[in-house]
Amino acid sequence: MLHIIRTAQEMQAHALRQRLAGKRLGFVPTMGCLHEGHLSLVRAARRDCDVVVVSIFVNPLQFGPREDLAGYPRTLADDLARLLEVSADVVFAPAEGSLYPAGFATFVEVTGLTEGLCGARRPGHFRGVATVVCKLFNLVQPQRAYFGEKDYQQLQVIRRMVADLNLPLEVVGMPTLRQTDGLAMSSRNRYLSGAERQAATALWRSLEAARRAVAAGEHDALAVRRRVTETLRAEPLARLDYVEVCHPETLRPVAVLDGPTLIALAAYVGQARLIDNLVVCPASVDTPDAQGRTEAAASSSRQD
Amino acid sequence: MLHIIRTAQEMQAHALRQRLAGKRLGFVPTMGCLHEGHLSLVRAARRDCDVVVVSIFVNPLQFGPREDLAGYPRTLADDLARLLEVSADVVFAPAEGSLYPAGFATFVEVTGLTEGLCGARRPGHFRGVATVVCKLFNLVQPQRAYFGEKDYQQLQVIRRMVADLNLPLEVVGMPTLRQTDGLAMSSRNRYLSGAERQAATALWRSLEAARRAVAAGEHDALAVRRRVTETLRAEPLARLDYVEVCHPETLRPVAVLDGPTLIALAAYVGQARLIDNLVVCPASVDTPDAQGRTEAAASSSRQD
Repeated sequence: MLHIIRTAQEMQAHALRQRLAGKRLGFVPTMGCLHEGHLSLVRAARRDCDVVVVSIFVNPLQFGPREDLAGYPRTLADDLARLLEVSADVVFAPAEGSLYPAGFATFVEVTGLTEGLCGARRPGHFRGVATVVCKLFNLVQPQRAYFGEKDYQQLQVIRRMVADLNLPLEVVGMPTLRQTDGLAMSSRNRYLSGAERQAATALWRSLEAARRAVAAGEHDALAVRRRVTETLRAEPLARLDYVEVCHPETLRPVAVLDGPTLIALAAYVGQARLIDNLVVCPASVDTPDAQGRTEAAASSSRQD
Repeated sequence: MLHIIRTAQEMQAHALRQRLAGKRLGFVPTMGCLHEGHLSLVRAARRDCDVVVVSIFVNPLQFGPREDLAGYPRTLADDLARLLEVSADVVFAPAEGSLYPAGFATFVEVTGLTEGLCGARRPGHFRGVATVVCKLFNLVQPQRAYFGEKDYQQLQVIRRMVADLNLPLEVVGMPTLRQTDGLAMSSRNRYLSGAERQAATALWRSLEAARRAVAAGEHDALAVRRRVTETLRAEPLARLDYVEVCHPETLRPVAVLDGPTLIALAAYVGQARLIDNLVVCPASVDTPDAQGRTEAAASSSRQD
């Protein structure tokens, strides 16, 4: 049975009752238009928790004035059907006024991590994300919250916020799900025409090209970025917004790859702005000795 | 029995256990150097709640670079003795590194309310207050939190933050306690020499002078401010920092007093920067008809 809640007050009251009854709550915040990527988060929550809450809210605070807030796909009936199939318990789908009533004036800012990548191109975006997620956490009161690694910077920002504000929950990052041709699943793939859909594979192809270069011994970040740029430039329907080669936790650009390294990019394909990323590891540190360090770095990006 | 907790982790684990056991937690956040004003908050929490938690933490984030962080009075042994007397259950006294470990990067900003009054004179102060109080709320998990009206702007900022971030607790404001000569109780009164202590009564005397003027029919905010300024100027050891006449909820300056109105001021007496405030009501709106509106305005500033 799927319980649909439309107001912040009712959501919080429900959650506090569940918590008092000793239930373990799992939470998947979404903007709706659910795809298999979202459903994999819900399935993970279903496995781990007693009560699974999914929020559906297209958060105006995280869209810039020239971004796609008005056109963002809204498919509530389909979303509910899918959530029934994966046995979610509660859908929290508030109206905008329920989360941002008149007089709303408080914002959560995560500094540092939000300076580069999408943060540099979308001023205020991560302030909007951190603020709404903080609110949703307080309303839903989860012990565990699930986010996709496709939005890599978002995941790191949420982890930082949860640690810094002492929110009593665990953030779980889940792998990006991809179509068979490599395209990362995203609600914004709906914007793509047939030809654009084909062109959009250039994002993954460019990351794969970079990974192969690194595996073959390339350590220079500039050369790795060039590999991405060249692959994308060969696709006339795609236009690169940025590609960065960064430390996977601080998200600061690196000049030389000497450990696990994030390659993150954004590109326009038609009207759609798509993002993707991959953590790569240089061949030279992938030795038995360095393997230990690699695993430690990877697991320390998960918080417990 | 007073339980002393020194780490964030231990505090949160303790609080979550109490919550799961169905206990009602009351919380009084302080910077220590406790006086009767603080103790009145603890007594209120004791009346209302099963478990009373008092935090003692001089929060560096809310002090400006030229402010009194280093010299702020620290009197932990005395504080503990007092908290035993008023039957607090838990003292949370974390080290700075426990609340702000390396890499800390997240801040809570309340806009609007923080623009005037102390917010204008102490850049970053309320960001520091909102951030630490948000953290403390998440660690202590109270159903009710108690703040003094002496820090009027702070109280409004906390109320705004709690509403905006959907924190599941009630903020309780408690009246300012005063010495018999009117001086508002404050940890910073310790900074005053004998002569300065006498001079410090000028803050309350100036507010009283303004109140009497309003009661006698003065409606002009400029004239009310002048009454405060003149009273303070007559005291050679005091130096006015600001006086403002504002709406008691929005904290925006008003030109004409036509309902309950906040008079708030800050003044230096020797090294001490002291603050005080008073909500006054013009005689003309204090009629049976307007009384209803006055009460409604007063009660709507309490949140439920």
